Amino acid sequence: MPADVKSIIQEGAELTDKALEALLPPTGTVPASIHGAMRHSTFAGGKRLRPVLVMQAAATIAGHVPAGIERLGAAIEMIHTYSLIHDDLPALDNDDLRRGQPTCHKVYGEAIAILAGDALQTQAFEVLAGLDCPPSATVQIVGLVANAIGTVDGMIGGQVIDIESEHQKPTPELVEAIHRAKTGALIRVSVVAGGVYAGATAEDVARLDLFGRKAGLAFQIVDDVLDMTVDSAQLGKTAGKDLATEKATWPAVFGIEQSRRDAANLIDEAFAALEPYGAKAEGLKSVARYLVERSN
Amino acid sequence: MPADVKSIIQEGAELTDKALEALLPPTGTVPASIHGAMRHSTFAGGKRLRPVLVMQAAATIAGHVPAGIERLGAAIEMIHTYSLIHDDLPALDNDDLRRGQPTCHKVYGEAIAILAGDALQTQAFEVLAGLDCPPSATVQIVGLVANAIGTVDGMIGGQVIDIESEHQKPTPELVEAIHRAKTGALIRVSVVAGGVYAGATAEDVARLDLFGRKAGLAFQIVDDVLDMTVDSAQLGKTAGKDLATEKATWPAVFGIEQSRRDAANLIDEAFAALEPYGAKAEGLKSVARYLVERSN
Repeated sequence: MPADVKSIIQEGAELTDKALEALLPPTGTVPASIHGAMRHSTFAGGKRLRPVLVMQAAATIAGHVPAGIERLGAAIEMIHTYSLIHDDLPALDNDDLRRGQPTCHKVYGEAIAILAGDALQTQAFEVLAGLDCPPSATVQIVGLVANAIGTVDGMIGGQVIDIESEHQKPTPELVEAIHRAKTGALIRVSVVAGGVYAGATAEDVARLDLFGRKAGLAFQIVDDVLDMTVDSAQLGKTAGKDLATEKATWPAVFGIEQSRRDAANLIDEAFAALEPYGAKAEGLKSVARYLVERSN
Repeated sequence: MPADVKSIIQEGAELTDKALEALLPPTGTVPASIHGAMRHSTFAGGKRLRPVLVMQAAATIAGHVPAGIERLGAAIEMIHTYSLIHDDLPALDNDDLRRGQPTCHKVYGEAIAILAGDALQTQAFEVLAGLDCPPSATVQIVGLVANAIGTVDGMIGGQVIDIESEHQKPTPELVEAIHRAKTGALIRVSVVAGGVYAGATAEDVARLDLFGRKAGLAFQIVDDVLDMTVDSAQLGKTAGKDLATEKATWPAVFGIEQSRRDAANLIDEAFAALEPYGAKAEGLKSVARYLVERSN
């Protein structure tokens, strides 16, 4: 990883961790079980890539990372964590491990894991309501985030389509629909909400939305390729799981070589949307470049 | 039920149902399963008492039921429905029936029921972000609602304490803590958010909060008493279930007669908080009076 993108990601992750530490109820706060469960999954080694995208998208608009934006990143990360906790439940993906650690329900039981996911979603919206930006921007961010994680082309909708299409032959349309909604929508809204926090106009929002849409799909394609080509130790999770469960993935439909080309082309298209911002977009572009070139 | 309170509740419920019908994705919208599940539980015969409280609290401040407030009531009802879907799951209360109908997971399976609850919470916040009131009021409402349904003295926290205290001898402090958080907080925030929508000052908010706190506890005590004294057919759900599962209830600690007196005293205290509003509070008071005097 080049030195500059490494420090962007490291500093962004540290800011996010500090914000999460300050925002989540302290360990031991009654009822202790659920607060333990929320912290267990929030601090399970996530790379905080979404909060880093939030920050760099804001810098693309404002020319610098605005004060207090780490709380917006932390809210997005709470939502990401809630979705992972619920995805891992026995009734859904039934995963015992995530990033090498026991999943929330394995440690705290199913009831507390369900409620901990619920509570992380709730707290994310509480954090958004407390953001240090004009009320009209806050309202816009709450609406954008809720829409991105909902059922119509949003995160939950993608999750439902993913579950219901297992063991079906994946089509290009199906794979794109799942990626766009299940993982793409939260990445897209990370970028857009970061921009709105920094004072983005409607035109800026449209450009960031296009960037987030293209880049988000590219990241997911790269994830799918890594799942097929890298062993579990390097990946930090069970490799080849998508294939074993016949998940609808990009390389399953298009093959690995075509997938790599598609990811590269999507990133080019994503970067074109940032043209008007010149050097102000360099941070955001470098993080996106890192995400499609990474090897785990 | 006197004619005036009957029409207040009926008209409020109808307005809420229309709003929910318009806000929830239409039946058949892809992915159809989750939208079916969300509608199944949202339209399962709920009395819409929280939305009615939202409307009458707003009328206490504004002198009339303000336009568009039914969407705030609908958002609160989505949250109430989400909490019921998750409460009923096998890992939590494991209920097959609610209001005489099969619960969400019995019809749609556990995975979709978990995600339908998640999605109703999400959509509630999307609806709040779209409220037709000044952005500063919207931000305040989002923050108040999220806080009321969170883990610290909020709905999820009360649910955790309730689960973890089953089969323990209930103490007065425990029962009050569960009621205040698990059911009381959402009732309290219904009243307060309704007031904020109507332009409540900080002083109004404090009065509505006190009213909501006292009245919410009274409603729950009456619920507990009805569970012990009324048969299942009249109640529309399994009577005596609290006793069978050794739930921490008010009459289990204080006896039925004392519980009835406590509920009556709490309502008197709640009404005292509304003194400054004179006749403008009559609607809110009549609904509260109905709720503590009802027989099912």
